[in-house]
Amino acid sequence: MARRRQIFEGQAKILFEGPEPGTLVQYFKDDVTTLNVKSRGIITGKGVLNNRISEYLLTRLGEIGVSTYFVRRLNMREQLVREVEPIPIEVIMRNIAAGSFARRFGMAEGTPLPRSIVEYYYKSDELEHPMISEEHITAFGWATPQEIDEMMSLALRINDFLSGLFLGISMRLMDLKIEFGRLWEDEQVRIILADEVCPDSCRLWDLRTNQRLDQKRHSGDFGDLADAYQEVARRLGILPESGPSDIKGPDTLQ
Amino acid sequence: MARRRQIFEGQAKILFEGPEPGTLVQYFKDDVTTLNVKSRGIITGKGVLNNRISEYLLTRLGEIGVSTYFVRRLNMREQLVREVEPIPIEVIMRNIAAGSFARRFGMAEGTPLPRSIVEYYYKSDELEHPMISEEHITAFGWATPQEIDEMMSLALRINDFLSGLFLGISMRLMDLKIEFGRLWEDEQVRIILADEVCPDSCRLWDLRTNQRLDQKRHSGDFGDLADAYQEVARRLGILPESGPSDIKGPDTLQ
Repeated sequence: MARRRQIFEGQAKILFEGPEPGTLVQYFKDDVTTLNVKSRGIITGKGVLNNRISEYLLTRLGEIGVSTYFVRRLNMREQLVREVEPIPIEVIMRNIAAGSFARRFGMAEGTPLPRSIVEYYYKSDELEHPMISEEHITAFGWATPQEIDEMMSLALRINDFLSGLFLGISMRLMDLKIEFGRLWEDEQVRIILADEVCPDSCRLWDLRTNQRLDQKRHSGDFGDLADAYQEVARRLGILPESGPSDIKGPDTLQ
Repeated sequence: MARRRQIFEGQAKILFEGPEPGTLVQYFKDDVTTLNVKSRGIITGKGVLNNRISEYLLTRLGEIGVSTYFVRRLNMREQLVREVEPIPIEVIMRNIAAGSFARRFGMAEGTPLPRSIVEYYYKSDELEHPMISEEHITAFGWATPQEIDEMMSLALRINDFLSGLFLGISMRLMDLKIEFGRLWEDEQVRIILADEVCPDSCRLWDLRTNQRLDQKRHSGDFGDLADAYQEVARRLGILPESGPSDIKGPDTLQ
């Protein structure tokens, strides 16, 4: 691994130069941080699980026609992805009030929203990821109005599909963070999903018990979190040891 | 005054039932708070000045076709305004980075923006006026997409006009807070400016010296602020003692 050129190191991943032009190798770390980057820890095996979970979810998204940066999984901790020009925006889909959103609007966590709400945050650790609006994005030139439309349209599809998928395994997708990038092909540019989708970047509650699979993470106690990630992988049918699922369908289907 | 029914009391004004249906009497208080409502004070005579300044500015805005709630000034501290259905949104126009905006994006105060930026904040003291986007506004039903368009269009006109007017008296309009309301007339509803415009709600810097007429206010020291408000009124030609102005035009005109 030492001979590869490192392109980027984030909180949960490292990107290396890929084997051919236009590709990168994404390495999934075990590091975990709370969403506000105020505490850090390690969950042994998290990177392995997220590599599998993101492979699964991005493959399924590709099948419904959502272009993503995912090419193929290489090994336990790495996958080959397409190199894109990153757009410095975190798109957050809010389905049910939780976390900072609930606090901001004085709502109890778990309150359903009138409809899903798209939020944008500026990707800057230094500035602590401030919330931004389309006005800031276009004024500062981070994306064009057309690119914002494309991102919002993709984000809505991704959110709809994943909400359904998680409902199918008895989980509520409370909110979801995704990022996009510009892919240049044949002198054309288009916007694709350029971010892993895994329990690091979405908030999942058990449909029946409302057990918060993100709770420990937010309190900075990472003790039980490995179990939560394994539970997500198990319900998705990814863990080899999962076998025939004993998970029942969502309440509405019973 | 005691016999009038009080409708609303804010940080800087009190609204009473007006002499006829569809009108209110707005009383201008001397109270002043920092923008984050963390310190309070009194500037003797501020209400009198703001009553005059807002009368002047809203009259000028009316002359260029911007409908406002202002009807006429009644006395030193009161004016008659139209009663509207308030929209619970503060619209902030940012022309030059300052205050919380500069901090949020890591910019030095005084940095010109690529273009004027419109921001929306939810009017709630309890929630400390969180910044919101069109997504929140429409999802929570605070205004319709068409109303947002109308507010933004009016805000841009108001900001253009006032930027020009203040430039003419050697002041830079760094940013401006305005609020709108729905006016029902003949079973039609339209959006009008329903907020005083005065140094309480805009940030003004002297064009030559960059003297921050809001600086003391933000630091919670209200000592010199009376002078700043008087200076604004004097340059606008409102104070009777101003006489022939000794203020020179903006640098660009010299």
